[in-house]
Parts: sequence; structure tokens; C-alpha cells
Amino acid sequence: MSTRIHTLHVNLAATARDRSYPIVIGQGLLADSALFTDFIGDRPVVLVSNETVAPLYADRVRMALGEARQVSEVILPDGEAFKNLETLNHIFTAALTDRHERRSVFIALGGGVVGDMTGFAAACYMRGADFLQLPTTLLAQVDSSVGGKTGVNHSAGKNMIGAFHQPLGVFIDVDTLHSLPEREFAAGVAEVIKYGCIYDTAFFHWLIEARTKLLARDQAVIAEAIERSCAIKAEVVAQDEREGGLRAILNFGHTFGHAIEHVQGYGAWLHGEAVAAGMVIAARISANRGWILPNEVATLEDFLTSFKLPVSAPSNMDAEVFLAAMSSDKKVSHGTIRYVLLSELGKASIVDDISQDEITIAVRG
Amino acid sequence: MSTRIHTLHVNLAATARDRSYPIVIGQGLLADSALFTDFIGDRPVVLVSNETVAPLYADRVRMALGEARQVSEVILPDGEAFKNLETLNHIFTAALTDRHERRSVFIALGGGVVGDMTGFAAACYMRGADFLQLPTTLLAQVDSSVGGKTGVNHSAGKNMIGAFHQPLGVFIDVDTLHSLPEREFAAGVAEVIKYGCIYDTAFFHWLIEARTKLLARDQAVIAEAIERSCAIKAEVVAQDEREGGLRAILNFGHTFGHAIEHVQGYGAWLHGEAVAAGMVIAARISANRGWILPNEVATLEDFLTSFKLPVSAPSNMDAEVFLAAMSSDKKVSHGTIRYVLLSELGKASIVDDISQDEITIAVRG
Repeated sequence: MSTRIHTLHVNLAATARDRSYPIVIGQGLLADSALFTDFIGDRPVVLVSNETVAPLYADRVRMALGEARQVSEVILPDGEAFKNLETLNHIFTAALTDRHERRSVFIALGGGVVGDMTGFAAACYMRGADFLQLPTTLLAQVDSSVGGKTGVNHSAGKNMIGAFHQPLGVFIDVDTLHSLPEREFAAGVAEVIKYGCIYDTAFFHWLIEARTKLLARDQAVIAEAIERSCAIKAEVVAQDEREGGLRAILNFGHTFGHAIEHVQGYGAWLHGEAVAAGMVIAARISANRGWILPNEVATLEDFLTSFKLPVSAPSNMDAEVFLAAMSSDKKVSHGTIRYVLLSELGKASIVDDISQDEITIAVRG
Repeated sequence: MSTRIHTLHVNLAATARDRSYPIVIGQGLLADSALFTDFIGDRPVVLVSNETVAPLYADRVRMALGEARQVSEVILPDGEAFKNLETLNHIFTAALTDRHERRSVFIALGGGVVGDMTGFAAACYMRGADFLQLPTTLLAQVDSSVGGKTGVNHSAGKNMIGAFHQPLGVFIDVDTLHSLPEREFAAGVAEVIKYGCIYDTAFFHWLIEARTKLLARDQAVIAEAIERSCAIKAEVVAQDEREGGLRAILNFGHTFGHAIEHVQGYGAWLHGEAVAAGMVIAARISANRGWILPNEVATLEDFLTSFKLPVSAPSNMDAEVFLAAMSSDKKVSHGTIRYVLLSELGKASIVDDISQDEITIAVRG
């Protein structure tokens, strides 16, 4: 049986009103035939998943889609290393071989990599097909499935090639979190607490209080945390769909985090782990400027630590290494690195005047 | 010295008003520094061209862009065979290697293949960079540079992967037509007369009258023909940017034409040549239905013939071969082939009920 706990509407800016869509959060959603019919009627489907997720959930999605419908399945190799144009082309080949037209719907069943690639494939397929997001990791549920960013990596950098393409809808089935490895669950939690840090002090404190239940994967608490995270992201994205300004605050912890991922080699640290350490560095700089309190940094570190998330930079990275890596990030504008700090807890601020000394002190802890 | 003969504004539908752009038609535009500055200020440039066009025009564009500006040059191999994801990736690699940011402007200098690929590369680069079109073939000037369709081919079909992405502007420098081989010039003329057939009887007759001057490549007459062609395409596209309905009339001659290109192998027939033969087939069917007059078909055939354009299908293609090839075209909706016929000269009509017999009779002539 399926239970729809929350439905959230992502309303994009006035000029893009036709691309608004709902996020449905609940249990048993992947098996909910009526839900799929509501969104896509009897349209043919290109179901994209990966080797890890497909054996767990593809069957129930296929059943929910019904036997009468044309469904093509594309199983990608698992991992960020395959998030490239070559793998993308496999999706195109499969869809074209099965003669899918522009009205077919692409469905992404998996984590962020599957979602980003499927969304991008849909964006490009015959110059624009529709897609649905079925995120199966906490990270994808609270982050990449909202906001319409899709794309692939290039050997010269992450997410360099892509499109803004909004899904028809996002179905977040919290049942999928049962099977999620501890490390990946924790990586998602890092993004959840990020929303508290940058936008919502009450949510930050609620999470600190809810820590034990989150660690026990209490479904109601997780659903609540996901709903609040998606709502904040949707609010921010609605005000700034194309990342002109406000949306940049979502990169709290990410400027330092991307540098860590880049230097360690993609895959060594999970994205959420790198963001956790990155948030701590940014929070320390904020505290050293007197913008937040030292005990607020300590509370954040303590929370992250209880999920076994890293709270400091890898030992091979000093301020100089960070600066070199960050200056090649695509968020760099006019050669200036933009950082996200906390002007107070629950409020982010974009700055571009952080000195190497400030980074050195924060990295040393 | 540069002369701007016409400036045309492509105004897209109300929801896309911010993506409207001007088409400047004139002489000496590629060398016009002020024109480039008007459109892109001092922004860095990724200049994309091909092995054939770059030696002719890249120098003057580079000079016009000025020495102070960062300009990276990407020279693609020439030809439809290279219009694929692999070549596209060369553009990304070059832009990333030279550390271009999202604010850099991609410039397409060449025919339709260069324009489609550069526009698509810009659409995907960091999820959306700006681009300028500098079309150097008549076909690109009157067709692919207007309307925002960009993309690459897939081994399973032409233009299967792409995006709708509008340029900042299109500079049509008629000087580039001096060097255009006769066969390519004629291929462009086929698309020009198409606009008369589907939308504007007066333009059709004007072209018939202007035939001798067109054959002599009279610059003023060509500029006029380009301006009227772009205006018609812009009018149609403005009413239907995403090809829901009206835009389909632009495919007059293309359903049969694509089938010819597909069966003969891409490159054997130029696109405009296949469209010429395709238009004649569609016009004959229209005449056989009593919608247009037999002598109107004869006038069209006669005009095309004076440019040495084909006016009949290749001998290896009968109605059955056409139908098999057309049913795999991406314009097919719900398995139904949509044809464009002429309900009268200067007026197109979409139909899906053409019988195999009608095709047989029209193909036989």
C-alpha cells in the first residue's frame, strides 16, 4: 500500500511557470500505479537505472507502469566515473533503437548520477522529452532531484556539460532508504543540515534534536526532514532558477567540498562527505570573523561526527592546495572565487574576499 | 567597409520574450568590430569553424574581435559525418582547456553543421552559454540560423540529440556567398523558394522573376531573398517555437527529402537537393488532389531545374522505400507520418492521409 505523506509544489519564476512540478514524498510510491498514471497517462517510458538499484526496485516500477505500456529499460554502470557523454549515448541508443518518440517519458530510478544523466538525456532527446525523477538515495532526494540541474562530467571537471530541465514530477519513496548503505545515508544527512545552516535556524535545531531518530532511520522523521529540505531548496530555486544570485547559497560547503573531491580523486570521498568537511571549514571562517558563535560550529561538528561524517580537510590539503583547486571550479566568475559563509546561523552570505590566511587557520581547525 | 542592409527582429512567443534576437543582413559584417562589440562587449569568445571555412573567413573575424579579447579557436572537420557527440566533445574540451566560463560567447562561423553543433555546445556548456551565428552558406542563412534548433546526429538518425537554444544574434554577411560552390548555392535556393510555396505567393512570383539575377548572384537581390526568407521563418517560429503545430509547415519537401538523404546515405545528396526533389513530390500530390494547378508545379520544377536542382526521386526509390524510410523519421507522431502539402500556392497544410498510390503516382512524375 502506498501512503503519500507530503506533496510539495516547486513553483518556478513567473517566466517559467509552465515548468513547475510537484514533489510527492511517501511510502510505497514506486509501486503506486495510480500515481504514475496521474503524471504520465499511458505514455511510453524509457526507464533508466543502474546495476545496483535496478535489482532492488526496477521490478516494482515496471509492475506499477503496467503491462500495456511500452517500457524500455537502460541499465547503466554504477558510479560517478560513468557520468559522461559516452554513457549518455547509451541512453540515446537504447531509446532510438526502441523507436521512442518525443512524447515518451524518461524515468530516472537511482541516485544523483542516474537522475542527472537521465534528465540531461531527456533534455536532449529529440530536443526535449519529459522525465520523472525517482530518487533512491537521501542525497538525491534532498538535493539533485530538485532544481532542474542535469548533466554529465567532462574529464576537465564535474557537471561541465548539461542543461536546466525540470521534471514532470519527483516521487520520493522513503522505503528506498532502508537499503541505503550507512555511508551514503550520512552523505545525504550532510546536505539536510546544510539547509538549516543557510536558511532556517529552527530546522537546524530540530535536526539536532532529531539526531537519534535520524540515526535510527525513523521514517516519519526522515520524511519530515526531506520535506523541509526540498521546500527550502524549492524556495531558493524559485527565486533564482538560473543561478544568477540567491541560488549560490546552496553551495555552502561546496566550494571547499568540490576542491576536496577534485584533489582526492572523484569517488574517494562521497560528495556529501566532502560537503560536510567543506561546511565545517566555511563555518569556522564565519566564526573567526565573529559572524556565528564558536559553539554553533561545535554543534554542527558534533552532529556530523555522530553520522561518522568527516569534519576536517584531508591531511594532504593546505590552503594553497584548496585555492589552486577552487580557482578551476566552474562557479568561478571573472576569475574570482565566490564563497558562501554564514553571516549568522540560518543565514548565508556570498563573499569573495577570503584570504589565504583565513583558509589556513580554518583548515588547521 | 560594412553595410547593414536589413535588420530583422525574431520575436519569440510571449513566454520566451527574453530570447528574441536580431538578424543583421549586409556586406562586410564579419569584419565589423563595432557590430561584435554591440552584441558581446568584451566577453571572451570560443570561435568554432571548420577546415573549409576557417581559412577563408576566420582571420577577418579574429581581427574584428580585437586583440584585447580572449579568443579560442576550434576547427572542426568539414561535413555532416562529423556532426556527432564525439566532435561536440572536442568543442567542450577546447573551451574547458582554455578555462572559458559561462559568460564566454560561442561563435559559429560556417554552414548549418557548424551552426547546429556550436549552438548545441553553447546550450550545454556549463548548462547554457550564449552564442552568435555567422552563417556562411545560403542554406544556413535562410534556414538553420533562424529558429533556435541546435543539435547533432546519432547513428540512428539525423538531429536526434539537441536543444532549442536561441542565439544572441545572427550576422548574415552576403560577401561569403561569393566563394560558395554552385551546388551549395543552389541547395540554399531550394529552401528560399520553399518559403514562397508555403507562405507567400508574391514572394514565389518575385523569385521566379528574379531567377536570372539570383543565378548571377546579384547581392542586392540575394539580400532581399534572404531577408524575406528569414522574415517568414521568424514569423512561423514566433507562433510556434517548440514545433507543436504551425512550425511543421517549414518541413514542406522535408519528409520526402529526409527519406532521400537517409536512403542515399547522408552526404550523397545535399540537404537542399533532397528538399528540392521532396518539394516537387509534395507539390505533385497537391496538384493531383486538385489543390494547386499543374502549371504551378511546372513553374516550380522549371525554377529548380535552372539551378540544376533535382526534380525527381532517385531511381532506386519507389513509394514503398519512401514509406519505410519516413516512418522512422522523428517527426512521426503516434506512428503517423505527417506530410506537408500545398492547399493552394502560398499556403501549406498538414495531412496524414496520403496513400501509397498517391506517392507512387507522384514519384513516377
